[in-house]
Amino acid sequence: MTDWIAVDWGTSNVRAWAMRGGSPMAQASSDRGMGRLDRDGFEGALLDLIGGWAGQGDVIACGMVGARQGWIEAPYAMTPCPALPRGLITAPARTPGLRVRIIPGVAQSAPADVMRGEETQIAGFLRLNPGWDGTLCLPGSHTKWVQVSAGEIVSFQTFMTGEMFAALGSQTVLRHSLNGEGTDEDTFAAAVDDAMAHPARLGARLFSIRAEGLLHGLTAAQARGRLSGLLIGLELAGARPYWLGARVAVIGAGALARRYAAALLRQGLTPAMADNDSVTLAGLIAAHEGATP
Amino acid sequence: MTDWIAVDWGTSNVRAWAMRGGSPMAQASSDRGMGRLDRDGFEGALLDLIGGWAGQGDVIACGMVGARQGWIEAPYAMTPCPALPRGLITAPARTPGLRVRIIPGVAQSAPADVMRGEETQIAGFLRLNPGWDGTLCLPGSHTKWVQVSAGEIVSFQTFMTGEMFAALGSQTVLRHSLNGEGTDEDTFAAAVDDAMAHPARLGARLFSIRAEGLLHGLTAAQARGRLSGLLIGLELAGARPYWLGARVAVIGAGALARRYAAALLRQGLTPAMADNDSVTLAGLIAAHEGATP
Repeated sequence: MTDWIAVDWGTSNVRAWAMRGGSPMAQASSDRGMGRLDRDGFEGALLDLIGGWAGQGDVIACGMVGARQGWIEAPYAMTPCPALPRGLITAPARTPGLRVRIIPGVAQSAPADVMRGEETQIAGFLRLNPGWDGTLCLPGSHTKWVQVSAGEIVSFQTFMTGEMFAALGSQTVLRHSLNGEGTDEDTFAAAVDDAMAHPARLGARLFSIRAEGLLHGLTAAQARGRLSGLLIGLELAGARPYWLGARVAVIGAGALARRYAAALLRQGLTPAMADNDSVTLAGLIAAHEGATP
Repeated sequence: MTDWIAVDWGTSNVRAWAMRGGSPMAQASSDRGMGRLDRDGFEGALLDLIGGWAGQGDVIACGMVGARQGWIEAPYAMTPCPALPRGLITAPARTPGLRVRIIPGVAQSAPADVMRGEETQIAGFLRLNPGWDGTLCLPGSHTKWVQVSAGEIVSFQTFMTGEMFAALGSQTVLRHSLNGEGTDEDTFAAAVDDAMAHPARLGARLFSIRAEGLLHGLTAAQARGRLSGLLIGLELAGARPYWLGARVAVIGAGALARRYAAALLRQGLTPAMADNDSVTLAGLIAAHEGATP
């Protein structure tokens, strides 16, 4: 018997778990993320996703569903603040018995920064690792570096590295160089070192990917490794205050998280690794437990 | 009476001048750049453009028309080399009386780099400024910094700054922030300084554009100024060996060239300015004069 529903609603995708207490009983997902929905479309998208799960209509959601362009704006909490629990915002659902509550994002005034969804992952990580202090790195389209202490988000900084990779790799002359499979990890590692040593050369090193393809036969796998390494290396150089001498955990999955970990290893760190599905669900459970019934 | 035709054939556009000796008699242009043409399409596109000009079929062309994906590949000359004259490559035109000769681009082995079209602008600049030694900056999608001495291209470096601006401004979350007119020049200048002082923070400073829009009402004109300033500032920091203590000329037109000049002024330089139409035509004239009849 399901007694509540956990939802992670991002820009591109939405995922739901049918929950009994702290245990997921079923899972469903679709590509009807915030970016593809009008304000009036959220309720139908949710019902399509969870309609097969009998009974319960108590939903806790995190992510871009609470953005200004989402179902209802859930105003940011300002740093420093606990990751959770904080006041949830109730969405204007019309279906009888359906109550959808949204976890607010977190903002920082100076330097200006925002997150939506990652605060729930952070809360989940802290639930799974009680008393943990240090830096969390959450790789993605907008990679977050987060300083956590005594259960609070102290400060954070977002790097657009993932979106830069996607835009530069597909919308510039580099698309010709990336036309092929794979990522060469040695080229990646060399490019991390290169960008950390000479961050200002980024624009020139990017063009070198194209030029070396034309002149010296750089392969697509090498090109992808260099593009990724240059951007992650630049980020590591800029995020140095977050990781230098710090205890670091990388929250993520798959090749991207492994690549951040590999880059940090080159700096002499041995980051802890956490799976982002696990911490997201743990954060939604923490929010459910902390919410008034 | 036209006695030859000068053509500047880039990726996006093609422009032709009906010439009598060193004087343009008429001009025509279209958007049938190399990027929109198959190998078989160049001759027709050219004839459509110059068909109204009676008589002469002697054409000198520069730019991407000589790329591997162009009409015929005009292999690169390797640095150090004169900008012009060098051997021209004859395109396989089928129309009786039509002779099209293409100016080869210039390549550099290490660091790997390539140019096609800019070598003609450089030759034109030198024709208009005999004996000039120093650094040429050619802003554009792929901005070139070129060290010129004794009439030769000694070395050069390409920064993808213009394409980065276009891709990041239109294909990432920043597109929401740039939705509006104008460029705030004060914000541009501050961002140049910021990026030069802290080049590694690029990815974070880019995201700050979005965050300051959400939290502090950054305007579209300020957002565009900051995006442009961060990217040009990063480039100036990376290109420092080219301009520091050097005589510099900026070859370009319009707001972009003015913005590069403004950024260089902030570094204590007073760059000479040259119009890119004038130098392109001067370079094509130099190639025509240097070519065997």
